[in-house]
Amino acid sequence: MIYLDNSATSKYKPKKTIKALKNTITKLSTNPGRGSHKLSIKASLKILETRESISEFFNLGKPNNVIFTSGCTESLNMAILGTAKSNGHIIVSTFEHNSVLRVLNHLKQRKNITYTIIKPKNEKINISEIQGSIKTNTYLVIINHISNVTGSEQDINKIGAFCKVNKLLFMVDAAQSAGHVKIDMQKNKINLLCAACHKGLLGPQGLGLLLINDCDVKPTKFGGTGINSESLEMPNEYPEKLECGTLPVELILSTFESIKFLNKNFDKVNNKIKKLSLILYNHLKNNNKVILYTTNFESGVFAFNLKHTPPNIFANYLNKHDICIRAGLHCAPYAHKYINTFPDGCIRASIGYNNSKRDIKKFIKVLNSFNE
Amino acid sequence: MIYLDNSATSKYKPKKTIKALKNTITKLSTNPGRGSHKLSIKASLKILETRESISEFFNLGKPNNVIFTSGCTESLNMAILGTAKSNGHIIVSTFEHNSVLRVLNHLKQRKNITYTIIKPKNEKINISEIQGSIKTNTYLVIINHISNVTGSEQDINKIGAFCKVNKLLFMVDAAQSAGHVKIDMQKNKINLLCAACHKGLLGPQGLGLLLINDCDVKPTKFGGTGINSESLEMPNEYPEKLECGTLPVELILSTFESIKFLNKNFDKVNNKIKKLSLILYNHLKNNNKVILYTTNFESGVFAFNLKHTPPNIFANYLNKHDICIRAGLHCAPYAHKYINTFPDGCIRASIGYNNSKRDIKKFIKVLNSFNE
Repeated sequence: MIYLDNSATSKYKPKKTIKALKNTITKLSTNPGRGSHKLSIKASLKILETRESISEFFNLGKPNNVIFTSGCTESLNMAILGTAKSNGHIIVSTFEHNSVLRVLNHLKQRKNITYTIIKPKNEKINISEIQGSIKTNTYLVIINHISNVTGSEQDINKIGAFCKVNKLLFMVDAAQSAGHVKIDMQKNKINLLCAACHKGLLGPQGLGLLLINDCDVKPTKFGGTGINSESLEMPNEYPEKLECGTLPVELILSTFESIKFLNKNFDKVNNKIKKLSLILYNHLKNNNKVILYTTNFESGVFAFNLKHTPPNIFANYLNKHDICIRAGLHCAPYAHKYINTFPDGCIRASIGYNNSKRDIKKFIKVLNSFNE
Repeated sequence: MIYLDNSATSKYKPKKTIKALKNTITKLSTNPGRGSHKLSIKASLKILETRESISEFFNLGKPNNVIFTSGCTESLNMAILGTAKSNGHIIVSTFEHNSVLRVLNHLKQRKNITYTIIKPKNEKINISEIQGSIKTNTYLVIINHISNVTGSEQDINKIGAFCKVNKLLFMVDAAQSAGHVKIDMQKNKINLLCAACHKGLLGPQGLGLLLINDCDVKPTKFGGTGINSESLEMPNEYPEKLECGTLPVELILSTFESIKFLNKNFDKVNNKIKKLSLILYNHLKNNNKVILYTTNFESGVFAFNLKHTPPNIFANYLNKHDICIRAGLHCAPYAHKYINTFPDGCIRASIGYNNSKRDIKKFIKVLNSFNE
């Protein structure tokens, strides 16, 4: 089995990540921040350590502003809905996922919020394209950092600086970039960073991150926080303001190990991915059966189609050869419209730390063996 | 270490639950319902099997109406916000948790929804008390099945029948009851059942359930669903209508094993809890140092205080003796007002399948050794 669906969920998980998952449910299944007993306190301290390590990993500088969510989708929902301004205007890119687009569509109907979708001329958004989209009621710019369809990367440093000067909130969807490229929230002037733990961060499914920098996010989920229990309002301080219910200790402690692993092996992991990606890129761009949509091969995300072949047909063929890729629209319809693959979509092969040179060669071999 | 905080998170997890958690992250870390490859299909089928087993466990009869959430808090938020009717009226009990009360407080401010809190005369809500609270705009009754503070149990069968006749939606917060007492959604006429997997269901943290019976819940979270990706609206069908983003496969498959365990051992687990609870109950009710608030000892939840002793003082003493309980308000302020323990709260000791007769005897011994 060759797994090339790492943009969905990364196959590779550090041994200690798996061990922490098992050990936590076995020995530390308890509610942090609720009881005053030893187990609860131990879990709380470990969670605080995890917040600190995540805050440092993204140079947020505020461990309490690391909010644990159930995934990047929940992070994006919380960030967009929690900062929504009635009658306001939002700027997004054509690469946004439905976890942004569908939230915006909801806000359009409920709060009369409009949005402009930037379709950059050359894949990379130019500051002038953002500038040209600003209206008097614009308050937020949401940018998909690395596209889950094409691997296109946006210059968040430039965009962040521009937003700061123009007093616009800057939100980054780092679903595909967290763990793959360095993100520095302070340097990049990011107000809201959303990420999943089960992709490039090499952690378990069911946990997401919302990192908040100098920005007020109102609660959109309400419940027990273990503090201020006498009040019917959510607390005013992060993280309790946005976190309610029992935190998933085993997922958080497991992710803690993934972050430690990445701190030690960031370059090793990503250099391997880049090396394998270059091999695949060189093949795909020179294969005249292939229409390649990816230009930024370093992302490890390859969007392509075989000429005259619907993506699902080729996906089935790959599946028969035990190769796992994802075909279709990848929950990002405008990205597909942008590369002219709507509505059938394309094939996406995404490389991870699990892959070997042998995997890539086998994939190329199977690709070449396909006859319409 | 004696763990008596099972109402927060159950200590005991079946071996296969732990094994499934580890095996899934190791071997089946993939996105269900997204790719068409073998791993993704295998995960999707296992998830469908889990939905079927949960649907059967609660006699819902509709596997697709089993919605996976991040916990009981998210289930309650989704159910209450997703059925909200502007200017409507809701009836709840005094035992509701902040995961209900704080949502209602939000709706009061945003949608002009009012609510009546029933304070039953004798712990158990009488149908006449609900009847007397009905207004012309009442559309929903929310009942905390077993109180997380006192263990008080409500007769959901009678209340469900009453709601059905009166055309009111009936929502049950089963956070403390799921896994402990039989719940039959069809027989009990429950429209919306909310539960956590990490308590009585003996599963991992980070997963909750929302079971929907003959009722329209509108989405309040928006994102990728793997189907209808071209549309900016969430799909119309359960579960996709309410589930977006990557499902936590390891948590779901782990919970699947817990449900299988409970199907085989339901009586064994709960008879053990009842037996141990009877021992503790008989001691506490006859101990003249103790003010006992729990009358329904079968729940395994014991709310009490020592006379002239603030709960946090006694909690610290227990902690020093390696006994884990929870002191304070337990995120249920009105339940504490009801039993006259507001604002200091009380001690809660909650028994689980992990406990032994020895644990209870040791707990009693330590309790008796306390001198103000």
